Order: sequence, then C-alpha cells, then structure tokens
Amino acid sequence: MTSHGGDRRARARSGVRGAGAVLDTLANGGVEVCFANPGTSEMHLVAEMTARPSMRNVLCLFEGVATGAADGYGRMAERPASALLHLGPGLGNGLANLHNARRASTAMVALVGDHATYLKDSDPPLNTDIELLAAPVSAWVRRTTRAAEAGRDTAEALLAARAGAAAGTGGVATLILPSDVCWSEGGRPAEVPAAAPAPADADAVERAAKILRDDTGCLLFIGGANLRPAGLRAAARIARATGARLLAEKSPARHRREPGLPDIARLPYPLEEALAQLDGYRHIVFAGARPPVPFFGYPGRPAGLFAAGCELHLLGMAPAALQDLADLVAPVGAGASRHVSDRPGPPSATGQGRRSLDHPGLPTGELTVAKAAAVIGTLLPEEAVVVDEAITCAPDLVAATAGAPAHDWLCLSGGSIGMGMPAAVGAAVACPNRRVLTLQADGSAMYTPQALWTQAREGLNVVTVILNNASYASLADELARVEGVPGADLGRTRGVSDISGLDFVALAAGMGVPATRARSADDLADQLRRALAEPGPWLIEAVLPAPHAGGGVSGA
Amino acid sequence: MTSHGGDRRARARSGVRGAGAVLDTLANGGVEVCFANPGTSEMHLVAEMTARPSMRNVLCLFEGVATGAADGYGRMAERPASALLHLGPGLGNGLANLHNARRASTAMVALVGDHATYLKDSDPPLNTDIELLAAPVSAWVRRTTRAAEAGRDTAEALLAARAGAAAGTGGVATLILPSDVCWSEGGRPAEVPAAAPAPADADAVERAAKILRDDTGCLLFIGGANLRPAGLRAAARIARATGARLLAEKSPARHRREPGLPDIARLPYPLEEALAQLDGYRHIVFAGARPPVPFFGYPGRPAGLFAAGCELHLLGMAPAALQDLADLVAPVGAGASRHVSDRPGPPSATGQGRRSLDHPGLPTGELTVAKAAAVIGTLLPEEAVVVDEAITCAPDLVAATAGAPAHDWLCLSGGSIGMGMPAAVGAAVACPNRRVLTLQADGSAMYTPQALWTQAREGLNVVTVILNNASYASLADELARVEGVPGADLGRTRGVSDISGLDFVALAAGMGVPATRARSADDLADQLRRALAEPGPWLIEAVLPAPHAGGGVSGA
Repeated sequence: MTSHGGDRRARARSGVRGAGAVLDTLANGGVEVCFANPGTSEMHLVAEMTARPSMRNVLCLFEGVATGAADGYGRMAERPASALLHLGPGLGNGLANLHNARRASTAMVALVGDHATYLKDSDPPLNTDIELLAAPVSAWVRRTTRAAEAGRDTAEALLAARAGAAAGTGGVATLILPSDVCWSEGGRPAEVPAAAPAPADADAVERAAKILRDDTGCLLFIGGANLRPAGLRAAARIARATGARLLAEKSPARHRREPGLPDIARLPYPLEEALAQLDGYRHIVFAGARPPVPFFGYPGRPAGLFAAGCELHLLGMAPAALQDLADLVAPVGAGASRHVSDRPGPPSATGQGRRSLDHPGLPTGELTVAKAAAVIGTLLPEEAVVVDEAITCAPDLVAATAGAPAHDWLCLSGGSIGMGMPAAVGAAVACPNRRVLTLQADGSAMYTPQALWTQAREGLNVVTVILNNASYASLADELARVEGVPGADLGRTRGVSDISGLDFVALAAGMGVPATRARSADDLADQLRRALAEPGPWLIEAVLPAPHAGGGVSGA
Repeated sequence: MTSHGGDRRARARSGVRGAGAVLDTLANGGVEVCFANPGTSEMHLVAEMTARPSMRNVLCLFEGVATGAADGYGRMAERPASALLHLGPGLGNGLANLHNARRASTAMVALVGDHATYLKDSDPPLNTDIELLAAPVSAWVRRTTRAAEAGRDTAEALLAARAGAAAGTGGVATLILPSDVCWSEGGRPAEVPAAAPAPADADAVERAAKILRDDTGCLLFIGGANLRPAGLRAAARIARATGARLLAEKSPARHRREPGLPDIARLPYPLEEALAQLDGYRHIVFAGARPPVPFFGYPGRPAGLFAAGCELHLLGMAPAALQDLADLVAPVGAGASRHVSDRPGPPSATGQGRRSLDHPGLPTGELTVAKAAAVIGTLLPEEAVVVDEAITCAPDLVAATAGAPAHDWLCLSGGSIGMGMPAAVGAAVACPNRRVLTLQADGSAMYTPQALWTQAREGLNVVTVILNNASYASLADELARVEGVPGADLGRTRGVSDISGLDFVALAAGMGVPATRARSADDLADQLRRALAEPGPWLIEAVLPAPHAGGGVSGA
C-alpha cells in the first residue's frame, strides 16, 4: 500500500520504537493521512511520522479541526482516518467533532498522547482521565502500556474502527499512547487483515420482502451506506415494484446525488414536519438506518415520531441487505445493478463546460436565502463535495441543488456545530481533484474557524460560502417558544440569538484565505464562479437578512 | 445580595419552574454572571435568566470561551462563577478551560443542559454520556431529575464548588439539567449557607515551625491564596526570621505583585531549571501548594523534582496555616499584619500619572521579546490584571514587570492552552474599573480566538498583546530533542512548529476589536499607550523574530 513495504518488513523483524510500530501498523491498515495538533508528549510520534514519506501529516491549529478533518476525510476517502491529539485537554477540544464522527460512523483512529507511564501517578498539571473522556465518543478505547504492544494495539484499533463503522455504532477507536511507550525500543508493527463486507440478515430481508409485497403503502427509510449509487438504485427498484415511498435519514454522513439516481427526500428537522412525514404508515422498513427520534423535546409535544400501531422493521446496517431485498421484490434479469460501482466517474465534458456558460436564469438583486440557494444550485460544479453546515438555510440549499450535476452531500450527522470547515479540510485532502463547497452558517462557523488556516497552508480546493444572517437563527424560533415565561425580558432573550459584528472576510484574511463579500445575488454568482475557477481556498461571505428582521426569511 | 430579595422569597413560597429555582439559588449563593453558549435544550434557563435583572448573561460564541471566562471571573471576583453549556458536545468544547479552572481551584458551577428525561433513552443525535465527560474536570457532578430538586441540587453544587476551591482539589461543580426539569413547575429555590474560612492544621504548623527554626536553610514553597498580600507578607516575615528561601508555584491562579510586597520567584518550567531551583535543601515546607512534579517526561531524565533525602512538609491549602506559622516563628507585637486586607486600594495618583509621562528608558528599534517585555514592564498601568498565556515569552515578561505598579498576574494553571483571551473576558467583567492586559502567544491564541468577539460586544477594557513569532516555539525545542530518530525528516519535523501566515490584526477586526501591528519597539510603546488610554478592547500584534531564525531569541 506504500512504496516502503521492504523497509516495513525489515522493521517488523528487527523491532522499532513504540511510535514507529504505531505508524507502520497504521500504514498496514491503509492510513495515509494524520490530522495533527501535537504537543510535547507526541514529539516521538511526530518524528516517526516524518520518517515515513507515505504518511501525510496535516497540521491543524485546534484539535476540533483535526478531528473534524479526520471525519471529512474518512467519509470521502473510503479508508480509515487518523487524528493526533495532545493529552486529555486536547482530546476534550476534539470531542465535539469526534461525537459527529461517531454519529456518522466514520472509521477513525484517534491517537491521544499522554504523560510517560512513570509520571502518571504524580498527576502533572496536564494530567486527566483520558479513558473517561474518550468513552462517550469511542467504540473502543485502549491505553498501550509497553512498546511491545503498540503494534498489536494499533491493529486492534483499526479493526474496531472498521467494525464499528460497518455496524453503524460509531467507528472512533481511541488509542492512548504514553510518551515513554512511544520512545522506547521493542515495538513490532502488526499486520491488519483486510475487511470483509458485512453479511445481510437473511431472515430480516425475507420478512421485509413479505411486508412490502403485502402492503403497497409502506415506507422504506434508508440511510448510511445505502445513500450511495448502489443503494439508491436498489431503493428505487423496490419502490417501483412495491409502491413503497422512500425517505432518507435526516443527516446522512454522505449522500450521493446525481442525474439518474433517485433524489430521496430527507427527514426534516422540525418536529411537526418530521411527524407529518412519518404519519399514515402501517409498516416502515429501515435499511442502513435506525428509527429516528425527535432531535429535542418540547413541553406537551410527543416523545416519539411514530404513530401508535405503526410497525417498524429493521434490515440492519449492511448494504447487502437492501440489495438482497431489491432482488427479492424486484428481480432484474441481468443483475447488472447489483454490481454498479459506487465510485464516481471522471467529470463529464458537459459538467466541466457548465461553469463557463452564462446562466440567464440566475437571480439578481438583494440577496435572500432562496436566491443564494438558486445561485449555488445553478453553479454547483460536477463532482463537487458539498459540506453542509448551513443549519436553517439547509432546506433551501438541498432543494435548489436537486438536479445539479453529480455531487456528494455531507451532513452534520451528530448535530454538534463546528464540523463544516474542518470536514471540508478532510474531504479536500481525500479528493484533491474535486471541488469542496462548504455551505456554512455564521454561528456554527465560529466554533472551528481555525480550519481556514489549514485550508490555506495546504492549498486545498475549498470554497466556503458563509450564510451570514448575523444570528443564531436556529435559536430565534426556540426563543420565541419560551417568551411566555413570566417576567422574561424579550429583548434580552432575543439578544442571545444576535451575533452581529462578525466580518468573515477579515477573519478569512487573518488566516490566509482570500475572501470576498456578496451583498447581492449578482455578487454571489460572480464571486462563486471566480472562486470555483481558481485553485486553492476561497471564502465568500453572503450577507443575508437577519431572521425576523422583515420578510420572515429563515436564516443560518 | 440582589435588589430582588422580596421577589425571590415570594417565589420560594409559591414554587417556580425548575430553571427559576436554579437561578434563584445561584443568586442566593452570590452568582451574578453567567458566561453562556446555550442551545435549544437551555432555552428555559435563558428565559428565566432574562427575567432576573440581577443576573448578567454574557454570550460567548464557543464554549471554551465561556468556561475560560468563568475561570477568569472566578479568580478575580471572589465569588463563584457560572457557565451555561449545551449538552455533552458543548461540555466537550468547554473541557480544556474547565481543566484549567480545576487546576486553578476556581469555584464555578458549570450548568450543562441536556435532553428531556423522557428522550434520553431513545438516544437523540446530540445525546452523550455527560457524567463521564464531566468527571475528569469536576469536583462534583449531579444530574437533576425533578424540578423539585433543582434548588437543592444547585445549592449543593455551590457548596461543592466552594469546598473544592478551598481544598485546592478543584472547584468545578457540574450540574446537568434536563430540559423538562427546567420547564416543569414545582421548583423551590434553596438557601446557600455562608462560607467559613478553612482552619489551619495546627500540628502541621507546629512541625513546620520547629523545622524552620532548626534548619536555617529551608525552602518555603507557597502557592494558592498565599500569593495574595496577606500570604506574601507572612512569607516575608517567616523568611526574615528564619533565613528560609522563598519560591512560588509555577503557574499560580492569581499572584499579587505590588511595591512593598515580596516579589517571590516562581518555579521555572524547564525541567533542568526546576531541578536546579529545588536542589540543595534538606527541608521544604509547602503552604497553599502541593509538591510540584515535572511537567513532562523525557528519556533518561528524572521522574521527580526533589533530591534524595529532601524532606517535604505540607501545611495544607488553608491561608490561615501560613499566618499561624508566621505568628509562631516571627511574632509581631501589634499583630497588624494578620489583618491586612487582600483587596486592592484605589489606583494611586502616582500610578495614574505614570502612563502619561515620557519614559526615556523605553527601548527602540527592532522588536525582540526582551524589548517587548521592557515596554510592557514600563507602561503597565496601576492595578492592571495581567492574563499570562505568553508561554515561552513569559519569563521575560515576568522579569520586566518586577517593580511595576501594583497588579495581579493570572497564569495558565492547568497548562492547557486557550485560556488567555477567554480568562481576560471574565477578569474584565469582574473588574470593570481595572485594565486587563492579555499577554498572548500566537499559537495558543488560535484555540479560543472567539473571545475577542465577546470583548467587543461587551465593550470590555482588555488590551491583548499577541506575541507573534509565527511558531509553536514551545515545540521547537522539543522537536530538536527528537531529531535523532532514524530517518526523521528534519524539515518536516520542524514544519510542525511553523504556524506562519496568521494576521492577528485582521482576525481582531473580524470580531470587532480594533487592532494595530507593532513591528518595532517604538510602535509597541506608542500603540500600548494609546490602547491603555482608550475604553474598550484593543489588540496589538507584536511581530517577533521566529525562534531559531537567527539571534536565538525564544518565542511564544
């Protein structure tokens, strides 16, 4: 998998330092990139990393950028990601995006350096209980205590990451590496067995087939790896053959959209809309997804999304299950659709040429969310990777990009804001020949703005559109709900959603990313065309009306 | 403690919502400010907060800013701080600065909103195990399960925070508040008993007195609350009477320095220097501090800081112990020094006038760390609060401010970078009539830059000096140590400490803080004078030579 197999084999025989065994084993498992924010306790890992030209070390200025980048990379690279973090506090800074990676079931090894084993009991200032911090976001946690175990532990971390990702239970494996384990001799790189695809649950498939045949008004709810070409085609066949309606999970890790594939609507975020979408079914079949639950609770509102008497049928997370179901209820003669590739082809000449054409239908005048969405939908380049942290602007953007050239759409699967710009870093590293377009709300942009620096340093092809309505618009509606609290000061309450005063053009410039401000739909179209035509990162601040400031337009 | 005691008493009789009981109990315990980054699950807490004019709600754009601000506030306000965080991922983002607050033993209640109790088992996307995440940084963790318990739990959180802060074991109390607990009726505010000062351990004081009398070559190592005027004067009396040498802990939470008080040197960070400072003593007495340990381990270097045979004597954390020890070994007739106030007096006319005088001794020409330190030392205003996250620049700055007008110096007690600018927010809120000066390294500035937005929004009197050497200078030396790894690529390894490309003037402008760039010592003096004379925040980017770039000057 690298050009240094001979070196690695020699090291496996003679032994290396603990850090070297970790890195060689990661290479054996196909890990080629580490998103790193190291400190003193990780210096030996850094040194060994630089001794291996096959390992790309991407420096991030904040751990939340490193973990979010690893998530974006893992979603797009189809190989495990890795991140390097500095002790418990560094892991803390990376936790929110590890949470998102867990919910996206991204396979990832989080390497967390720690104090030398002999210092741990004396509780140095940066000491903390890393195992406790890691547990809530990790499918697997281990502390390596001897260099001789570093290779074995790394291999087990990779297997656990892959297994958790495949099972949809979270693919973050956290390996804690004390500094003396890393600097000590006696390490032995370990082999990492190849992954086998998960088998389908044949009984569950049979039962679902019977239900779909018997009840022509079923809902087929799909998610996970089924939102790639093979799964989408299988779902479309099932729908055509049985009359089932299709719905996708709310925030998929990666949703392929291209002409010729069904563009399946996603479950909406607002509780009332989600309830309406799931109402009226006797049977719902879930493939690659679990039954959804309300995102938040509200006084007097339901605690679940399904009507009484609705039966839920779980096919499991294995993509093979949906394929088998399609073959049962809608067999195809040649079977060609079983073997359709999930890999995108090269950009078509049509798509490439599309950007340079004039688009007379582009909106003009004052910028609104709807017009921004129309501009983006019109100019989206072939094989774009869209990273969506647009929050309240997202529905318009999803609608406006229906029918756009082929693209992958990455969502905020875990709901913890601050994923967008970091995930774009990782996606761009994974896909250097594709354009990454980050659709980024202003409020959530401020959780991990440091990602822009890495975009500039690495020259990544990322265009970021900040949908700036100067507010936490997602809170504006929630705040309206609590205005009935006796004595609550409406002005002060609404002030919590007012985050005006940010200048994203200046912020981007501060991190070395060229940036422009779009005050009209015409500006946005001009700037987006230019940004997509140039190599390297670019940021466009799209100035939108604040929510409740007049036209009732929702914001970001 | 507020002007709404009547209202509160009425609510205590009639019952309030759970959120109201939390807020009234916080008010009973003297909490007047909450540094908040709320989300949907905290809306009822926000609404109840706005219904109480005595509670100041300071909005932060990232949870690490909220927790760091609460730490800075708690260190300066002499009353408990509070922070409001959004579920497990929000707590995750705040953990690094909660770690610092724990190491500084700041009394603080961290309010963490959570999903409604009836949703928790269904595992909504943002669900996580908050108790596990909170445990490593918290002295106390509790989940409130009914509105009726919200007042009692809040009172216990406040008591636990105060007790942990006094014991030096960490004063972060984490209270997890499900949204339905907050919105439900039936809450009852609780009273919070007044704090009693911790008593001294009389036996330990007697033993230490005997040792100090018997051995004229002891070291008295002080920290915590003893680094305030009363403790510093007691330490000076003990040193004069017994010949003991004085040394302070490495990174105190708050260190008072003023003309007339002993300016006790702090334990240095580099392992070799720390070993040298602690070498040669038969007895070391610790008052308000525990015996220090190495910050990090290195191959072949010692795991402890004390010579074999050196006896360590612990007086405990209570400030009364050092006072009692001074009275035993160096009694004063009038006893006046027992009752010296820790509160700073009003700025003196001398100090106020100092800024407007010419300082012919100010350095000029190319900016270096030493010259920057000299400028800051000369211009430091009377009663400044210095927040020190200058990392490798810190020793020069500490030396240059010896003899400056009275000021408090806040250190990075927990070692987790990203405290500086947030702690300045809290210090400025706590001390609106004092000037806060943040001495901020460039690398660590990028962990929580969002603090600048809150400084602008609240119009806080904070001057930030970014000591920009375009590198993680603290890693540069560490990287040099690992260059012996076979095959390590020195260029790539050193690249890990190269963080050039940041423009802090633009970053500050992006968050609404006026900023200027100082390329010479003359620039810095001019800009610092101007910044200190104007109300509101200001940022100065001091452009320093990169480490190893020539003169061997260390950086930040």
